[in-house]
Formats: sequence, structure tokens, C-alpha cells
Amino acid sequence: MSIPPPEFVTLDLATIEAASRAALIAAGCDEAHARAAAAVLVRAEQDGCASHGLFRLPGFVAALKCGKAKGDAAPNVTRLAPGVVRVDGGRGLSPLATEVARDEVAHVARENGIAAAAITDVHHFSALWVDIEPLVEQGLGALICTAYVPFVAPAGARQRFFGTNAMAFGFPTADGGFIFDQASAATARGELQIAARDGKLAPEGAGVGPDGAPTRDPAQILLGAQSPFGGHKGSSIALMVELLAGVLIGQPTSPEAGREEFSRGALEDTGPPNGGALLIAFDPDKFGDPAGWRAHAASFFAELRALPGVRLPGDRRKAERARIAREGVRLPAQLWRHVVAAADESSPKR
Amino acid sequence: MSIPPPEFVTLDLATIEAASRAALIAAGCDEAHARAAAAVLVRAEQDGCASHGLFRLPGFVAALKCGKAKGDAAPNVTRLAPGVVRVDGGRGLSPLATEVARDEVAHVARENGIAAAAITDVHHFSALWVDIEPLVEQGLGALICTAYVPFVAPAGARQRFFGTNAMAFGFPTADGGFIFDQASAATARGELQIAARDGKLAPEGAGVGPDGAPTRDPAQILLGAQSPFGGHKGSSIALMVELLAGVLIGQPTSPEAGREEFSRGALEDTGPPNGGALLIAFDPDKFGDPAGWRAHAASFFAELRALPGVRLPGDRRKAERARIAREGVRLPAQLWRHVVAAADESSPKR
Repeated sequence: MSIPPPEFVTLDLATIEAASRAALIAAGCDEAHARAAAAVLVRAEQDGCASHGLFRLPGFVAALKCGKAKGDAAPNVTRLAPGVVRVDGGRGLSPLATEVARDEVAHVARENGIAAAAITDVHHFSALWVDIEPLVEQGLGALICTAYVPFVAPAGARQRFFGTNAMAFGFPTADGGFIFDQASAATARGELQIAARDGKLAPEGAGVGPDGAPTRDPAQILLGAQSPFGGHKGSSIALMVELLAGVLIGQPTSPEAGREEFSRGALEDTGPPNGGALLIAFDPDKFGDPAGWRAHAASFFAELRALPGVRLPGDRRKAERARIAREGVRLPAQLWRHVVAAADESSPKR
Repeated sequence: MSIPPPEFVTLDLATIEAASRAALIAAGCDEAHARAAAAVLVRAEQDGCASHGLFRLPGFVAALKCGKAKGDAAPNVTRLAPGVVRVDGGRGLSPLATEVARDEVAHVARENGIAAAAITDVHHFSALWVDIEPLVEQGLGALICTAYVPFVAPAGARQRFFGTNAMAFGFPTADGGFIFDQASAATARGELQIAARDGKLAPEGAGVGPDGAPTRDPAQILLGAQSPFGGHKGSSIALMVELLAGVLIGQPTSPEAGREEFSRGALEDTGPPNGGALLIAFDPDKFGDPAGWRAHAASFFAELRALPGVRLPGDRRKAERARIAREGVRLPAQLWRHVVAAADESSPKR
């Protein structure tokens, strides 16, 4: 009589961090990249954001092992103008370059009031809220966006062209900051994948099949094109992201990145494409109300939160953080075994 | 037998400009304000954007006549940081302060790569695409947003709190630039007003009545709360606008502006509330691909426009511009008589 293996394991953050770091080193990361990449995975798990947590580690590992991403690329900083820096990631994973960009842009924003960082030649992986939260926690406002590979049909069209093109915006508050992080697609791609797996319908208006006809079959939408959120207005946001994170900073737009990925024949197996992100930071102390903006933000959010039924981005995340701090992170056992096996490759002596 | 008066008149832009300017002077504007405000009205009519054209002139005039807006306020420029300027409009109409802000922010963006202007203490009136088009035409990228008075329910809530909170973004291209300008509300307030007048239903999901229940009765939605576009994602954009155009620059958020307006007892009769706008400009030559971004933008837009069915913001406007240049501006005769009568007040000798 065999006992079935448990489906879930519960772990503390330090254990997850150590195993992630070891797995990344085994896959070819140097210490700096492994530390930075493990930190963004752990940060996501800490807030119950499983879709950007350890779930992504196999993609990191695959991108490193196939040589698409470099584990030892040193980010290279260039000041392009008094208010603009470029952080060239040298085909590395994004977390280390993003750390460097954050430090640069924070410094320049405090000097100039507003600053931008072009993060280039990286494989972008993290949730965008993770990328800007440290800026918001130090009292700065921030906006970041990144293109991807083509999955979303522009308004009026019925074929994929835009990426899911997430954008995150953060503003400092007394309780750790307000941040939203949202894709330009109506429905998360992961949600469609889960619906397809479970035999469920996609939400109304989620996209079209490969024939261009609207459908609620998630498998068909995954093969066809997702809709932008909010019709032509969400499509405009997706377009803005292509211009800011692609054209402006000399990086591939989603259709361009898609062609590079498809030419490798390995889309969705080797992690995210090579590309860039645009990060903007601003210092509210330099916008004309240094004595008042903190209290103004507090009264604004207090009034907003008092509205019956209102839901604010980030609230679920903060509640999860408190729960997970008490209870630990609950991970699918299969995923955890995968991480442990990947980590063990780096320490044959164990 | 009396001949009914014509319902529409067709006029050239110079005639419209002269009459608008005279009406503004009659209402108390100095030459500089009258020229700047008439220019934004004419610019809207030139592209067939009637909702932001002469249709708004009675609001300008009412705001000036009741003393809410000052016709002779000189915009006052302060450099708050190397990358940030404030243009204090001194309770004037927005167009003159916006002209000044545009010149300042263009200059600083060319120096620093990115720059922001806090436009404060104005009565904002123009379409936002009008505000940024001159920047885009001179090769800069731009983003502008402004809060308003509470008309839109945040996601999950059923009462008005956010303004319609428009945001415009522009990026330079070889054919005059790409610009989108969109409210955060699902449906334009003007559309609801027209539907109510004509006894038609509002689109599905446009908003809730004063009782908080979803309705398609446009009159009830006008009394209740409009929905943001795209559910919680559009609600996030509306919130971002409150923070950028309100809290950040020390200006009223929409609920605050609403209380000030309601306390005057004159909402929608005396033009827009007092408040601010945030304008950001950036110079694509300073973001790392000065030799390539123009060709990159051209190839990106060419590929996008080649998608069957695709609709891009601004295309209808540019087509209208060509038509109106040939045919003139067609205005409701009643509106034109109103403008002419207002203009005649300034020239008793005629």
C-alpha cells in the first residue's frame, strides 16, 4: 500500500530563496544574477503572486541553459542625458539590470525631479510591481512598462500584434505605497491556460480564434489573439507600451520579438524574449507641494477606501503578505521538487 | 409666409477664429488669453472635433463673466527642479498657461531628455490632444492628463468619485505624429447627454443610477455614476490621473474640485472647475537610438496599419481635417448666432 505523495508543500521564504538561488547558479548564473533573480521570485511568493513566483523559475533556467540568456552579463550604465540613463543588460536576465536601473533612476529623479531609465537587452521576467516597489517605498513615484511577444489584437483587427504589454504605476503613501500592475490584455494569458486545462469557457470578449472569429474557447484564443482590455482604449495603452519599451529605447516591439522567438522555434519554452523596459521615476517633493502631498494622498485614499464596495489594486496582495508571513508559502509539490532537483545539480557533493 | 432659419452654417476657420477671439475679449479676456483660447477652439473645429470646439465657448464665457476664471491672469513660471517647471495659471483659462508650459517643457526635455510641467490653478478647457500636438510636431513625445469633477465610480463602488480623467499620449512620426486622447470613463459624458436628449439607451455597462443599480437609462447614469472603461484596469488609469494631476502637483482631485463647484451651486453652467494638469515631454533623440527611432516608428506603424480592420486613434481626425480644409466648418446655426452675439458685445460701434 503506497502513500500518494502530497500535492502541496508549505515552506518559509528563506528556504525558497536558497533553493532558487542554487538552481539559478546551477543553470549558469553568477552570484549577482542568482541573488537578484531569486529575490524577485521570492518577492512574488511573499505576496501570494504565484504566477510570477517559482512558477517562472523553469523558464529562467531554460533561457540560461539554451544560451538565450547570459547568466554572467554585467549591466552597463550610460548616462544618455541629464535625466536619462541606459542600463544595458547584455542579454542577461532582467532582475540585476533592473536593480541597477532603479538605483540610477532614483538618484537622478531626486536631482532632477523626473528621470527615465532605458533597460535594454534583457530577458524580462518579474512582475512589474516588484520592479518599482523599492522606489515607491523610498518615497518616489514610478511607472514601468515592457513589451512582450504578439498575443493581443489591436482594436478593430483580429490577429495578434501587440504583446500583453503590462504597465505598473506606483505612488508613495504612508502605508507602503499604492501600486497597480496590469496587462493590456482583457484576460491574463495564464487564466486562459488554466481555463483550457480545466475545460472552462473564457470570459465574454476575451479574444478570437485563429480564424479571427470571436470565441469563448480558451484554447482557440491562445492560438488566435487575445482582446485588449476596454476595447480601443486598452488598445491605445498597449500601443503606447510598444512605443515606450520598444521604439523609443531601440528595443524590439512585440511583433519583432515574436519573429525572433518564432525563428528559434522555442516560444514559451525558453522564457521571455530579449527586449527592454522603460522605467520612469519622479520625486513628489519636486512638484510644487513638498509640504502637502503626503497628507493630500492620505486624505484622498481615505475617502476612496471609504466608498462601499471599492476594490483597490494591491489590497489583496497586502492581505496575502500578512497571511503568508504567518503561514508560509504553499507551493505545488511537483514545482518544489523541480526547483530542488535543479538546485541539486549545483551541489553534487550533497 | 416665413422662411425657417437655416439649421447649420458653413464657415471658414479665420471667421471662426475672429469671432471666438472677439467673444472672449467681450467676456473679459486680455489679448493673450483670447488668442490662446480661440486657437484651441479653432484647432478642434479644424479636425471635426465639435465636442471641444465652439461648443465650449459659452462655458469659457460663463466662467469669465461670473468671475470664476480670470481673463487677464499672467502665467507665472517657476523651475521647481532641473527637470520640473510649474506654470501657475493664476485662475486663468488653461490655453495660455498650457502654451507657456509647452515651451518650457520642450526646452527642458531637449536638455534633460525628459521633463515635466505642473500646470496649476487653471480652468482646463481644451481637448488634450490639442495641448500636446505642437510638441509632437516638433519631434517630442508627450503625455498629459487632467482630473475633473466626480462623475465616475471606482471599480467595485457604485457612486461617483473619479473625474472622467482624460489622458493623451503622443509620439512623433514622419506623418505628423501619433496621438491618442481618451477619457477614463467607458462612455463620453457628451454621448450620454445626447442619448438622453434623443430618448436612446446608453451602451451596456455605461454606469449606474443614483440608487447604485446598473442601468441603460442615460439620464439616470448622468445623475448616478459612469463606469470606468475596461473595469478595474480603466479604474486604475483614472486613479493614476487623480494622483498625477491632483495630489502630486498640489491641485484638487476630482472629488475636491466637485465639492468646490457644488458649493458654488453652478456645476456645468460655468465651465470647468479650477485645477491642474500634468504634462510630461521626452526627447526620443536622448533615449539611446537617435539614429534609428524614426525608421523604427515608421516600420512599426506600417505593419500595424497593414492589419485588416485595424483602427488607430487620430485617423478619423486627420481625414476630417482634409475634408474641412476643402469644405469649411459646419456649425449649428444657433451656436454660431450665440458666438456672434457674444462677439458683438465687444464692439458697440458696429
